[in-house]
Amino acid sequence: MTEITMSAELSSTCPQYGDLVQLVSPTNKRHIFRLTPGAQLQTHRGVIQHDDLTSCAWGSEVLSHQGSSYFLLQPALIDLLLETKRSTQIMYPKDIGYILIKLNVAPGQHILEAGTGSGAFTTALAWSVGAQGRITSYEVRAEMQNLARKNLARVELEDRVTFKIKDIATGFDETHADAVFLDLPNPHDYLRQTRAALKPGGYFGCILPTTNQVTILLDGLYKESYAFVEVCEIMLRFYKPVSERLRPTDRMVAHTGYLIFARPVNLLHPPGAPSDSTPPVEAEERDEGSPG
Amino acid sequence: MTEITMSAELSSTCPQYGDLVQLVSPTNKRHIFRLTPGAQLQTHRGVIQHDDLTSCAWGSEVLSHQGSSYFLLQPALIDLLLETKRSTQIMYPKDIGYILIKLNVAPGQHILEAGTGSGAFTTALAWSVGAQGRITSYEVRAEMQNLARKNLARVELEDRVTFKIKDIATGFDETHADAVFLDLPNPHDYLRQTRAALKPGGYFGCILPTTNQVTILLDGLYKESYAFVEVCEIMLRFYKPVSERLRPTDRMVAHTGYLIFARPVNLLHPPGAPSDSTPPVEAEERDEGSPG
Amino acid sequence: MTEITMSAELSSTCPQYGDLVQLVSPTNKRHIFRLTPGAQLQTHRGVIQHDDLTSCAWGSEVLSHQGSSYFLLQPALIDLLLETKRSTQIMYPKDIGYILIKLNVAPGQHILEAGTGSGAFTTALAWSVGAQGRITSYEVRAEMQNLARKNLARVELEDRVTFKIKDIATGFDETHADAVFLDLPNPHDYLRQTRAALKPGGYFGCILPTTNQVTILLDGLYKESYAFVEVCEIMLRFYKPVSERLRPTDRMVAHTGYLIFARPVNLLHPPGAPSDSTPPVEAEERDEGSPG
Amino acid sequence: MTEITMSAELSSTCPQYGDLVQLVSPTNKRHIFRLTPGAQLQTHRGVIQHDDLTSCAWGSEVLSHQGSSYFLLQPALIDLLLETKRSTQIMYPKDIGYILIKLNVAPGQHILEAGTGSGAFTTALAWSVGAQGRITSYEVRAEMQNLARKNLARVELEDRVTFKIKDIATGFDETHADAVFLDLPNPHDYLRQTRAALKPGGYFGCILPTTNQVTILLDGLYKESYAFVEVCEIMLRFYKPVSERLRPTDRMVAHTGYLIFARPVNLLHPPGAPSDSTPPVEAEERDEGSPG
Repeated sequence: MTEITMSAELSSTCPQYGDLVQLVSPTNKRHIFRLTPGAQLQTHRGVIQHDDLTSCAWGSEVLSHQGSSYFLLQPALIDLLLETKRSTQIMYPKDIGYILIKLNVAPGQHILEAGTGSGAFTTALAWSVGAQGRITSYEVRAEMQNLARKNLARVELEDRVTFKIKDIATGFDETHADAVFLDLPNPHDYLRQTRAALKPGGYFGCILPTTNQVTILLDGLYKESYAFVEVCEIMLRFYKPVSERLRPTDRMVAHTGYLIFARPVNLLHPPGAPSDSTPPVEAEERDEGSPG
Repeated sequence: MTEITMSAELSSTCPQYGDLVQLVSPTNKRHIFRLTPGAQLQTHRGVIQHDDLTSCAWGSEVLSHQGSSYFLLQPALIDLLLETKRSTQIMYPKDIGYILIKLNVAPGQHILEAGTGSGAFTTALAWSVGAQGRITSYEVRAEMQNLARKNLARVELEDRVTFKIKDIATGFDETHADAVFLDLPNPHDYLRQTRAALKPGGYFGCILPTTNQVTILLDGLYKESYAFVEVCEIMLRFYKPVSERLRPTDRMVAHTGYLIFARPVNLLHPPGAPSDSTPPVEAEERDEGSPG
Repeated sequence: MTEITMSAELSSTCPQYGDLVQLVSPTNKRHIFRLTPGAQLQTHRGVIQHDDLTSCAWGSEVLSHQGSSYFLLQPALIDLLLETKRSTQIMYPKDIGYILIKLNVAPGQHILEAGTGSGAFTTALAWSVGAQGRITSYEVRAEMQNLARKNLARVELEDRVTFKIKDIATGFDETHADAVFLDLPNPHDYLRQTRAALKPGGYFGCILPTTNQVTILLDGLYKESYAFVEVCEIMLRFYKPVSERLRPTDRMVAHTGYLIFARPVNLLHPPGAPSDSTPPVEAEERDEGSPG
Repeated sequence: MTEITMSAELSSTCPQYGDLVQLVSPTNKRHIFRLTPGAQLQTHRGVIQHDDLTSCAWGSEVLSHQGSSYFLLQPALIDLLLETKRSTQIMYPKDIGYILIKLNVAPGQHILEAGTGSGAFTTALAWSVGAQGRITSYEVRAEMQNLARKNLARVELEDRVTFKIKDIATGFDETHADAVFLDLPNPHDYLRQTRAALKPGGYFGCILPTTNQVTILLDGLYKESYAFVEVCEIMLRFYKPVSERLRPTDRMVAHTGYLIFARPVNLLHPPGAPSDSTPPVEAEERDEGSPG
């Protein structure tokens, strides 16, 4: 076995200096940090030397100097999302997973986002489009986008993202985007700008906390000839993972936001046109039951 | 503007011969087919000439010879999933989105799956790992895997998948996989094989319809030193997207399956070892509420 | 044992002529009818003689002349609700149970209802207040109330109900009612009439299908000095009752309506009064978690 | 108007000495107490004289000596339930409402319960059967039942309840009960005793926190010839009652318990009988959708 193969294998077995690593306690206290020669992690339950971790396989149990147990793990996207430093509400993994599916996100695509917020969803998008993909993220609050930029840099995904401080009321600079996601309180104000930025047949999505906002957005979508409109919400319920006493946890997140998806289409008789006697395209109510 | 740019732009604006296209009626009847010179699509509401579609932008409304309306759209992954030809229960987009997040799937990875089933989840995996990624899918029923193979070929993702007819009781042929997903009734029987196939710190997931199966799996996971065990279920509720009468649909899918995720770890004192006086690693109950 | 005791015991053991009885097949086809000398029940699976049932204990399995199995049961309130002959959407047991609790319904009370509809909720109210209680039910559509009247008569609860054909816009005839329930699309139009009809500190409730209606009602409630406003929805999920394969049913009812409850109060500074610098009474968000 | 009528009306307008009253702050801090001449209520926000309340109509806003606002309300059953002094988990209103419906509880009935616990469900039962009804409640822990007894006395419903310190393994003392409810971890051990105590065709219900317990109970129910078995769970989701920002609360109770209902029947060929070639009665899966 050559040295190069050797090194590659080691690299996939143990963390190396410069890697982002995660130590998680059995009670799920987690520490995410970059492995640095000579550095040490201070926890409430003792100290761990970074150097000691380079000879531990991923997945190993390690002990602090006080004997407290931790597991050495690669930080997953979901860990990064949940640890995103933030000054705003961030999006939840339960919603992000479904949004990525509904926006049809794939490696190599170009996705537009506004606003950037703390960058949690930006992270998920950058992760999903891969090194060949590109994210452009708009925000009007500079200090907010700076936080997002730092969050992306910390997880080494900032190369995939173009950050812009700009009000999208004046339009996106890009066209032919594969998808546009709006995480803003008033997405109905930007439906024309969104259409102009999307490739023909592209994907539009947004998240809104209140029913009142959904009502206003629906009006806008039909007025602007979007079709296949879908409104939904996702509820995630955890169970206590105890074999002999299996039951849901006592409490759960009841609401994060309503998800709305639509596609801009070109109607032969747009709403408002004089000859238009037909109602706007009927809304999508695809039954997830059908695959059953 | 050069001819090449021109062509590239056209290609992203209108479908071309050989493209997979989708015609969707306002009531969500959908036809997915490959655009072929001289061919025609027969629907219950009239005929549409393939040739006519090459000059329509994606997103356009088109009419059958009887005047029925359809929209010309690129088939999205979710459309392909819902249209998967199948002889078994397939996985739902609501679950797939969250599973992809929890297994930490990203472009370029190598993911193992057993069984192949009808290939719906295989399609989602192949889509998500991109052209640089690789999926290896095990199945014991040859005719089933043939169906999956055809489903993957139809959507031109078969190059990313290695299909194997083999019982994983004798182990996976691969090691260092980024993640393993088991869609089998008895995943507890393959936890050692799964550990052997995963990279250190890799991701394990499965879906099970009944609480009895979850109970058995949980026992197995603790016995085999998996940690960070999570059991959950995802409920997706659609709303009627009507602005002035916003309300959930009358009925919904109540259950598809319980999702179980875990990580194989290396315990200093594995369960069963003589010196083991500590309980197995406490199960994960990460609160999705924390990001709030 | 005297004959009288004997008869009393028999009466609680076997049905008697004049009783409302129910035959339910193992697949839950149900027939509710009044036991009549010489009559016979025709089912798709054979004939059953009423006379034969008088010697069967409640809970017995009986056979049709074709040998099909049925169970002889007293019709419960929930059976009567689900079998209510109707021309409108009726209320569901899951909602009725919680509404009765929230309206504080008890034996002997006087409850007002508008509109009567098909009388399903009227039946539940009449059942709950007992022989000493009284229900007054308003409706503007005479043919609708006639149907309700027949439904109540069929289950012998009509003595407890006063039916009125009258628009409550001009007010209820009654005062000091224990509770008022409005099952109307525009309850916000009747909040003053409701207050006038309620005893001091009485209970108000209604059910509305859309979020838009809830929004309008909330505005009205605060304007009319109602407090302790609660908006909620109840989801009922059934499981397949199979011991070795316990799991939820595949599909469920996703929505019937939003339930809204409130109490008319006497504010020292009602909204709109010149000296009113404080906001209206904060809405109730009692956490059901607290009893845990 | 005679003085007697006058007094009756006053009595329904204002609280009188000896009445159980409730003062609730706008933020839902609640104080339930019995109105006593000369007594005073001490709150964190000031003192209120009992005597002052006798001239306030129910529903009035009253002020503490520090000017803090409270509303004077009759305590409802739901308030009493949520305020039950307890040493155990108590049942939730969302479950109680549905259980009362499923057990077919009505004024004048006789209901059996085991165990008594802290008496919250006992209170709801006593409330619902009225002054003509009767509850018999079994418990093995004397100190627990004493607490329940005090809780019932406090709300003046103890006359309707017979408390017994006895293990139901040796059977209930009563027969011909209208319904039996078991709030015990092992209801499967008492199914014969329950059948013996129920009237023919009577109603059985219980609540269990884990799926494992449900599995065991289901086995027992079929073995003991119970039919029309129903397993369900009820989820209650509250909304923030804010007109212009209508949305669910952030968090909710995710699980209290699984509800199981069944009816003891008399099978022509009980399970285990030699001639029994048919499976036990198919479980109930009544679709709540049917009334829609």
